[in-house]
Order: sequence, then structure tokens, then C-alpha cells
Amino acid sequence: MIKVAIVGFGNIGKSVMEAVEASKDMELCGVIMRTQSLNKPQITLPVVDDVNKLAVKPDVAILCTPSRSIPEVAEVFLTQGISTIDSYDIHKDIWELRERLDIAAKKGGSTAIVSVGFDPGGDSVIRTLFEVFAPQGQTFTNFGPGMSMGHTVAVKAIEGVKNALSITIPLGTGVHRRLVYIDLLEGYTFDDVAAKIKADPYFCNDETHIYLEKDIDPLIDVGHGVSLVRKGVSGKAHNQQFEFSMKINNPALTAQVMVACARAALKQNPGAYTMIEIPVIDMLDGNKEDHIRRLV
Amino acid sequence: MIKVAIVGFGNIGKSVMEAVEASKDMELCGVIMRTQSLNKPQITLPVVDDVNKLAVKPDVAILCTPSRSIPEVAEVFLTQGISTIDSYDIHKDIWELRERLDIAAKKGGSTAIVSVGFDPGGDSVIRTLFEVFAPQGQTFTNFGPGMSMGHTVAVKAIEGVKNALSITIPLGTGVHRRLVYIDLLEGYTFDDVAAKIKADPYFCNDETHIYLEKDIDPLIDVGHGVSLVRKGVSGKAHNQQFEFSMKINNPALTAQVMVACARAALKQNPGAYTMIEIPVIDMLDGNKEDHIRRLV
Repeated sequence: MIKVAIVGFGNIGKSVMEAVEASKDMELCGVIMRTQSLNKPQITLPVVDDVNKLAVKPDVAILCTPSRSIPEVAEVFLTQGISTIDSYDIHKDIWELRERLDIAAKKGGSTAIVSVGFDPGGDSVIRTLFEVFAPQGQTFTNFGPGMSMGHTVAVKAIEGVKNALSITIPLGTGVHRRLVYIDLLEGYTFDDVAAKIKADPYFCNDETHIYLEKDIDPLIDVGHGVSLVRKGVSGKAHNQQFEFSMKINNPALTAQVMVACARAALKQNPGAYTMIEIPVIDMLDGNKEDHIRRLV
Repeated sequence: MIKVAIVGFGNIGKSVMEAVEASKDMELCGVIMRTQSLNKPQITLPVVDDVNKLAVKPDVAILCTPSRSIPEVAEVFLTQGISTIDSYDIHKDIWELRERLDIAAKKGGSTAIVSVGFDPGGDSVIRTLFEVFAPQGQTFTNFGPGMSMGHTVAVKAIEGVKNALSITIPLGTGVHRRLVYIDLLEGYTFDDVAAKIKADPYFCNDETHIYLEKDIDPLIDVGHGVSLVRKGVSGKAHNQQFEFSMKINNPALTAQVMVACARAALKQNPGAYTMIEIPVIDMLDGNKEDHIRRLV
């Protein structure tokens, strides 16, 4: 049995717990939370603030803390010989994270798989495969319709915003519309806050519509989608057409892919990897011969 | 530069030549044909009947001969230290082929990637990834609309058939209609031949329509398609929906994927593999850091 610890217990952490519980080859050692005094989860698992306080040392820690915390948090586990899975989603810094964690993992004899989940993650494998199929051409990533976690967090961070929700609408060819719903703190005006949202780097390049709402929660649905479209050239044949799409509960999908990669991590040599560097069969539970007979 | 030999020069062999010519990291050593006296191709490459007659020893041989010949043909190359790529498509025997070629490859210090192409091949990677996304559920593979190479060959092998074409029409949920166009040899009647086609294992379980045609060639178009559909469960979230589809020139796609795997073969330890056992990044030409920055 693979021994798993969950680090952080927000939306993703809770979904990771469910995905581990649904995996026959895994067992949970516990949840690690820095601020466990606040909102201590109502679960039967051990909840601790340090991995060394767990009765059983985990093989792998699934990191469900914010992206910015990942480099530092992952190193602590990796150097102790505990592999890590993260869903680091700051695309421009993924290579640097991989380089940094590669050193820590090799030092600890452990494995890190970085930027695992929906996108980066599953989408990354599909984008790579599309270039295997047609090395010349163009791929478009169209997100939505659905709630964007990153954009919602960005709106909540703007001064005067009490609560918020950002929905992404795909307009095709990688262009997106943003629907932003906000509830304001007292003393702030809609026009001032809306102007700040439209100027934010997350929104300034997209068609953005902002709506005032008294209550955001009744609008929340964590369903999301993506459509990856490529048209390109295989050999000398043009007009080869490829599309991948999914419509999913986003935290559940992200958590499931992280759990699959936790399994795969233990099959790799020490070091750091992205999902496109991992054989997909390593992500499945069960017997290699069965998988090849059934899936190839 | 990766040195490539092409073995067999039918539809796929010609498309492989084009795909290698379009690959900046590869060069062709020549074409190997057993029956080179017949239909010697009008190309500037060396054409020989034995790999040892080539001026340059290839790193990898791309096998474009019929599936039934593959086990024997591949072993000859693998034991000489030349890696092989094949598009062996007899699904029920893929594991056995992999087992057999694994021995030959390890003996020769070479690598075999078996059952590479459209399906088995690219589709196999997608089917595996779909189970990573949602381990519980059901996947349907819907082929077409387009020309099925395997079914066309099966019709041509039936007594009385002069020329034939079999088109696959997807009816959804993995059910297919077959449209079969035949031209007859003298002395055979349509009803007799049609009955034999309908009784053939390739057709007996599907809705099959058979048409008499004087000339088959004007109907031929090597375009094909597939739609892979999965609905399943991630963690405890049901109704997760996934779809992959492509509409492609079939020999060009098959050849391109074989060429990508020729590159990947040289990055693996000696032995035999299926595509789902190979990191997708290994199939791309170019620099790992660039790919990760761009695709993850």
C-alpha cells in the first residue's frame, strides 16, 4: 500500500482525500496543516502541523497549498525522502520549480512531479501528444465555461471586494470572456472596484464584464471545461484536425490526477519531473500486462 | 542525426519517407524491400533487400510490412542492434509481440516500440490518460467515417473479389456500420460473395451494407476519423466527461506517429515497449527545457 499524506485541506485537499479513499493501492497517513487550530476538519484522520508528528511516515505528500508556497514546502518533504506532487500553476516559472526541486529530490532520494492537475497537467500531456501527431501547426487552449479558481482568487485580492466569483467563457481560438461577480465591503463604490479589476493583469487583456451581487455563494458551481484544438501537418499532409474536450468537476479532476501521479512518482528514479516526462501507464493502479491487453 | 531505414514501401512506407524528410533531426539510409524487383520505387534513396547492403547502418528501422510479418522481421533488426518501430494492429496479440521482441531487443542492446500509429498507438495513450482522469467508468472508441485499411484487406482476401473498399461509419457507443464496395472477378455472383463477406469475422457482428461497383478507385479517400468518449468518476465525483476526436489522412498520421516513436526509441533502455510506456516528451524533436516551458 502506498502511504499518502495530504498537505493543506482546502477544496483540493478534500477532493484528494476522496480520490485516495477510492484508490485500492493507497492509504492515508494523515493531513498536515500549518494553521490547524483554525477550522480543524471534521475527519477521522490524524491532523498535525508537522510530518514528523505522524505515526506513519508517508511515501508521498500531495501538496494542496497555494502555488506560491510550493517551492519551500516541497523541499522540506523531498529532502526527508518523501516524494511530492504539486499543482503549481504559475506557467512561466514551472521550469525553474522543476530545476529547484530536482536538486532537493536527488538529495533526499525522492521524486517530485510538479504542476499536476487540469492545466498544467492533463492538458499538458494532450498538447504534447498533439505535436507528436502533427509537429507543424497551431494549438488553441479554450477554457470554460466554468469557474476559474485563479481569476476568482485574483478578484478577491482587490481592495474593497468582500466576496467574488470569476467565470471563464471560451470565445474560441484561445480568446476568453470573463464574467466577474462581486460583493463589496462597505465604503467602496462599484465603479472604483470595477476599474481596478479591469486594470488587473488577470483581466486587462480580456473582454471583462463585472456584476454586483448581494450573495455570491448561490452562483458557485465548480464545474469547468476545456477544449484543446489543433490543426496541423503530419509528414506532408496538411489539414490534420485534433480536438480534446472535457466537462468536469474541477477540484475532483485535479485531485484525481494528483493521486494518479503520486502512484507514478514512486516508479521513477529520484529527481523532478513534469507530467509529460512520465509514462502514462505508470499513473494507473494494477498490472502492466492487463493494462496493455486492455488499453493498447 | 538519427539514421532511419524504411522496411516495406506501400502506403505507410511512402508516408514514413515524407515524415522523415520533414524531421530536422533525421536522415534516411534507404528502403529495404524483399521483392524489390517488382514495382521498384522511383526514389533517389538506396533500395536494397537486406539491411547489411546499406552503406550506412541505421539506428532505427521503421517497419511498414504487414502485421503478420512483424514478429519475424523485427527480430532480425533488433538482434543486430537496430531499434524497430512497427504498427502491429492485431490487438489480442500485442502483449505477446512485446514479450517476444523484448528478448530480441535486450539481446541486441536495441529498443522496439510495438503497435505504434493511429489505433493501436495514439488512441492507446488517450484511452490510458482517460483512465488516469477517471479510473471508474466506460470508454467508447468510435471509428470513422472513413476507409478502414484492415476491413478493406479482409474483403480483398475473399474469393471472387477483384477490388474492394470498406468504409467505417460510427453509430456511437462503439457500434459501427460497414459500407463495403466490391468489384467481382468473372464467374462469381454478387449474392454469393456478399454472403461470404457478411459471414467474415471482420463483418459478422456489424450492420454491413454491400454494393457492387465497376470501378473502386474513384471512391478511395484515405481520410479517417475517430472519437474516443469517456464518462466516469474522479475520486467521488461522477459524470466527468471526456472526448478526443481527430479527422486525419490516415497513412500520414500513422507514419508521423511512427517517426516520433523512432526518435523516442533511442532514448529508452533496451527492451520492448508499447506507446503508453513511453514519456510523450521523448517523441518530440528539440530541447526538453523549451518543450516544458511551452507545453506544460
